[in-house]
Amino acid sequence: MTRVGVIGIGHGRFGRRSDATVQELAFEAFRLAVQDAGIERQQIEASVIGAVPEYHKQRSVAGVVQEYLNLNPAPTWLTEVACASGSAAIRTAWMAIRSGVHQVVAVIGCQKMTELSTPEILALMGRVGEVQWESVYGTTFPAYYAMFAQAHMKKFGTTREQMAQVAVKNHYYGARNPNALFRKEITVKKALASEPVASPFQVYDCCANADGAACLILASEERARAARKDKVVWLDGVGCASASMSVLKRADLVSLPSAGAAAGQAYAMAGTAAKDIKVAEVHDCFTIAEILAYEDLGFCAKGEGGRFIEGKQSYVGGATPVNVDGGLKAKGHPIGATGVSMAHEIVKQLRGEAGERQVPGADVGLTHNVGGIGQYCFVHVYRRD
Amino acid sequence: MTRVGVIGIGHGRFGRRSDATVQELAFEAFRLAVQDAGIERQQIEASVIGAVPEYHKQRSVAGVVQEYLNLNPAPTWLTEVACASGSAAIRTAWMAIRSGVHQVVAVIGCQKMTELSTPEILALMGRVGEVQWESVYGTTFPAYYAMFAQAHMKKFGTTREQMAQVAVKNHYYGARNPNALFRKEITVKKALASEPVASPFQVYDCCANADGAACLILASEERARAARKDKVVWLDGVGCASASMSVLKRADLVSLPSAGAAAGQAYAMAGTAAKDIKVAEVHDCFTIAEILAYEDLGFCAKGEGGRFIEGKQSYVGGATPVNVDGGLKAKGHPIGATGVSMAHEIVKQLRGEAGERQVPGADVGLTHNVGGIGQYCFVHVYRRD
Repeated sequence: MTRVGVIGIGHGRFGRRSDATVQELAFEAFRLAVQDAGIERQQIEASVIGAVPEYHKQRSVAGVVQEYLNLNPAPTWLTEVACASGSAAIRTAWMAIRSGVHQVVAVIGCQKMTELSTPEILALMGRVGEVQWESVYGTTFPAYYAMFAQAHMKKFGTTREQMAQVAVKNHYYGARNPNALFRKEITVKKALASEPVASPFQVYDCCANADGAACLILASEERARAARKDKVVWLDGVGCASASMSVLKRADLVSLPSAGAAAGQAYAMAGTAAKDIKVAEVHDCFTIAEILAYEDLGFCAKGEGGRFIEGKQSYVGGATPVNVDGGLKAKGHPIGATGVSMAHEIVKQLRGEAGERQVPGADVGLTHNVGGIGQYCFVHVYRRD
Repeated sequence: MTRVGVIGIGHGRFGRRSDATVQELAFEAFRLAVQDAGIERQQIEASVIGAVPEYHKQRSVAGVVQEYLNLNPAPTWLTEVACASGSAAIRTAWMAIRSGVHQVVAVIGCQKMTELSTPEILALMGRVGEVQWESVYGTTFPAYYAMFAQAHMKKFGTTREQMAQVAVKNHYYGARNPNALFRKEITVKKALASEPVASPFQVYDCCANADGAACLILASEERARAARKDKVVWLDGVGCASASMSVLKRADLVSLPSAGAAAGQAYAMAGTAAKDIKVAEVHDCFTIAEILAYEDLGFCAKGEGGRFIEGKQSYVGGATPVNVDGGLKAKGHPIGATGVSMAHEIVKQLRGEAGERQVPGADVGLTHNVGGIGQYCFVHVYRRD
């Protein structure tokens, strides 16, 4: 079966995009990806849309995007797994190519998050937790992750300063990413002086809702080599695992079991290991989530995540640079677009096109995209020859 | 690459299911499918969920279903393309197996439609049309299809009686399907005396919202033969096409261009043609939609659909029996479940297990599942050896 390569990438500005509908956001990213691939739109045989439609006025998102991108009558479908919807779209497109059905597929993560009011958004988000036994009692996303943080602090001595250091790093790199929502550096002191959200979290521990889109064009080996010669980035491992929605049913709260399982699959498929990963994009919806990811992905031992960021091991120059585009924290989190945005950064890094954020010698990269509170996790491994 | 076979099917009762949550509906169908396949739950390597989450109180539907079916940590993801979501799930699962990633995949179409109030449902449904230029002016689903009906009546002389005959047929077979919402026969006279909805439609031209679930277990050729020996039904063609959301941009209103394109793909993949189809399940959300399907799928010539039903050509014993389980009209239309329910009936027919609704000698069958107003269409061809 064919290898699958990335031949084009595109990314729009994340933020409050009241200037654009969801299909216009999709077009911004798609146009750049088609230009980058150097192909004609007509060569695209299908599209897969990553989005969570319930935050949009417009439903049937795949249909409206497909029409606006002028891709009719090509097939299109949408994948939804909460905040991992973009990675599910990439994995599905990869399968479409591997199975021989399509040769060139556009993946578009696109999301409006600012059309609804904040109370409407919060009510919807609560329902991504388990509604029968948990969210009816007031669990919210910050509250779930705050429990994970409390458990990690208690078990491993992880500190508030270490969490704040995650935010400081991600703002540092976000300030150097023109597509990011927040482009200003912060300090640990400023983070720890911000408003409380859900103990132990303060404002700077939390990512922000945003509108935005990103696009990836995937192709079979033959088409990829035809389009980009030797400058192809290959998607060699696509891992996916699930875990219970109910945190009550989890063995512990200091890891996301779906992340470890998905990483194991992706490493095995790609014939690689954690130590080979030169650059990673992980799902830092809250600062503790990035610390859990270091551990779940094997970048450091269990319980060492706090010390990993404290020692700057996830900066460029450290053991495994992580979220050097700003992560969800600084870029903003348009939930359907996030997984595709992660892939966009890894491809840029593996091509050596990341400018002042470039990780030297990056040849293998990873994305880690969590849905909900870890009921889904997708881990993908990219490689350049 | 491997052929993909259906090894298990399950179907719950469609209707107002206030007795069950979405995950409980999923379990009803899943349990039957696992029993039917004669495998252990642990052999299922992944699940794909077909659902439209916005009609549910519970979001993150794939996560809550995966947990309730005790399938963690296996991968799961959800596909959404409006009323064709179930068929998108089947096509995606097919790709997952063909690409060599998974060997055995459960596809679960599950939908709650009765948790929200009727005004809430109608408002949501309107937004599945194009919100920027169309639904703001009051287009609704019945109104869109009523335009198609008016155009067909004007161009081809299709009559109200012919449309009513579609409803009469589907109620006739629904009365013989224990999973159907409406299990009573009707007459043309009764249909034409029912309340008006959107001219020319009356109540009996329209399908009804329902809760429900259906399940299909797909497997690679090796696993399929191991599970069922020679009694495998094969999914040999998976077609999918899109069309503009805006009806303003369609060349005409007397066909769904996505249906013809998807059928062409499916026939080519399966090495078959319309004349070989012995039994079909088509998307009769409104009576005119079944008439359009006869023509778009090539069961009769363009414009002949009205005469096709008038001559009882879509009854058992006719040229191509259609919706002999009652169709959306009599079964009810739990939108995410409908595509999987169609596949369930075709598999039963090809196995010769459809009882008094059995089409004699059925060896090749087809499903035709439309999303929205034809912005998506999936056509799948099934065959027994």
